[in-house]
Amino acid sequence: MASPPHRKRRATVHDVAIHSGVSRGTVSRYINGERYVSSAAREAIEAAIREVGYVPNTAARNLVMQRSQSVGFIVHEPGSLFIEDPNIGEIMLGANATLSAEDHQMAVLVVDSDRDTDRVARYLSGGFVEGAIIVSARSHDPISEVIDRLELPAAYVGRPPDAPAAASFVVIDNRSAAAAITTRLAATGRRRIGMIAAALDRDSGADRLAGFREALGDRFDETLVEATPLYSYSGGRDAATSLLQRAPDIDGLFAASDAVAAGAMEALRAAGRRIPEDVAIVGFDDSTWSRRTIPALSTVHQPARELGAEAARLVLLKLRGEAAPTQVQLDCSVVWRESA
Amino acid sequence: MASPPHRKRRATVHDVAIHSGVSRGTVSRYINGERYVSSAAREAIEAAIREVGYVPNTAARNLVMQRSQSVGFIVHEPGSLFIEDPNIGEIMLGANATLSAEDHQMAVLVVDSDRDTDRVARYLSGGFVEGAIIVSARSHDPISEVIDRLELPAAYVGRPPDAPAAASFVVIDNRSAAAAITTRLAATGRRRIGMIAAALDRDSGADRLAGFREALGDRFDETLVEATPLYSYSGGRDAATSLLQRAPDIDGLFAASDAVAAGAMEALRAAGRRIPEDVAIVGFDDSTWSRRTIPALSTVHQPARELGAEAARLVLLKLRGEAAPTQVQLDCSVVWRESA
Repeated sequence: MASPPHRKRRATVHDVAIHSGVSRGTVSRYINGERYVSSAAREAIEAAIREVGYVPNTAARNLVMQRSQSVGFIVHEPGSLFIEDPNIGEIMLGANATLSAEDHQMAVLVVDSDRDTDRVARYLSGGFVEGAIIVSARSHDPISEVIDRLELPAAYVGRPPDAPAAASFVVIDNRSAAAAITTRLAATGRRRIGMIAAALDRDSGADRLAGFREALGDRFDETLVEATPLYSYSGGRDAATSLLQRAPDIDGLFAASDAVAAGAMEALRAAGRRIPEDVAIVGFDDSTWSRRTIPALSTVHQPARELGAEAARLVLLKLRGEAAPTQVQLDCSVVWRESA
Repeated sequence: MASPPHRKRRATVHDVAIHSGVSRGTVSRYINGERYVSSAAREAIEAAIREVGYVPNTAARNLVMQRSQSVGFIVHEPGSLFIEDPNIGEIMLGANATLSAEDHQMAVLVVDSDRDTDRVARYLSGGFVEGAIIVSARSHDPISEVIDRLELPAAYVGRPPDAPAAASFVVIDNRSAAAAITTRLAATGRRRIGMIAAALDRDSGADRLAGFREALGDRFDETLVEATPLYSYSGGRDAATSLLQRAPDIDGLFAASDAVAAGAMEALRAAGRRIPEDVAIVGFDDSTWSRRTIPALSTVHQPARELGAEAARLVLLKLRGEAAPTQVQLDCSVVWRESA
């Protein structure tokens, strides 16, 4: 595997000729796909191309690439979550619609393992996409490092702490939104309000906990917070089971996402609690989950499709060489249904 | 937009030189990305490249492509279904894991509109993927036509009637599986069994209805079948509402998918029917839906992840030039839970 070509110093035909010991004319004939290149020369050239990391014919290749006009949509999630979290699908469709309207092809690249991470980083290095939209990046993400190094036009949904400085970010104010729904829940008269926190290694998860804490102020009780690693149904169910054993008297619950809330509702039912009579519960996302729970979930509406559309818009601006804002914040709102 | 290059007759540097009126040497310098090509020549060459559909440097470009080793995963579904149908996510992750193990990059291409269809067809024509996995193709799908014309190594999940003859297919026996679960439902003593059929324009939807009909034999009653266009929650809810108005005495219901069943359960509850006491209901898929309905849904287990893995395996065989079976059929089984 050759080291990926650096955008600022591309290998040239000249480099290939020197490394292969074959004349520039022959290298050129090879690259043009012409016949009459001996197999010995061919092998030497191919080895040299790999060695120096030559990406052939920058100009004409760009022409081909302009026909493809492809933007990577990178989802860095363990597989189960890709399926469970309807937000990711919504963000993806929002981005696709906006890219499609300007004749850009979206290529979704799934990152489900370390092997995937390395390969996607190579794919980006290879120049197969002209830009990237990144959803749920983690800290120290190798993919972010590649985007930074290649200066690839990129927009993140969310804002990981060590994201490339040149990227743009489409965010919501997780902290304020979490505070708003916690305040609304407290206003119903609940006195022992717990939280199933999730994904505390990400800005969204940490901010939702911060908003919860802020809204409760003096009434915040650390022992009523149970954390789970991912925004997942099973994580919500297991964490709520633990919390109920530790604090059987809770009468209100803020779950860090709708999927987490749906799992917590299973645990509440299994423990014989009526919703909302015994325990009022609220979620976060307003995804399809929230309309299919029984009773329907009160939650924070997150504009998932618009987040994707906005990220696509920012990448398209960058691709046209126009100025793109560093950060765009979209509004959330509380949606009150029957679970609280 | 140039017409896409045909695999069997690629335009050459010679064609570009003739069409541009520029010498082959200059065209070659341009393609190699060298300096000292006048802007007039550059423009003439770029116009000619578009006109003749030249894809530069076949050999070296293939070398680059081998580094990307990319396989398209094409989902031809209206957007909402991409989100609602957990099977698609499972198939996608199964394919990704298998491709990843052999260092191939999967690029998911979403087809959500006619505009998407045309652009994805162009993307395939441009050679940006080496192979393709296609989920939920329709009849007369332009994407299938492109795959056929380019002879792109391809595997379908399911088998659309006019799919390319050279493709491979990974299928389940929808008809037998539907007959099996209908027989099991009838064995519980239900006498007025209806069906919410879906997606009758596809082999899967038509075959599930055929299996239902076959299992009931003389007891099949056409007036107890209500059809909905897509495998969707809302379609299931609305069709079940209509069916209950027309035939309030039904005591059993086969829904063509789990999402359809979940929607139908909402309609049954809204009409005051207890499940399974008043109406027993079964679905098809064994997706995450079936474990989250209340009561848990009896259904047909469809090996979604394996379908994706098998499709990927077939494409990898073709890419290596090895013989791949034309069709692989995977087994389904009935999973009995609480809804019937």
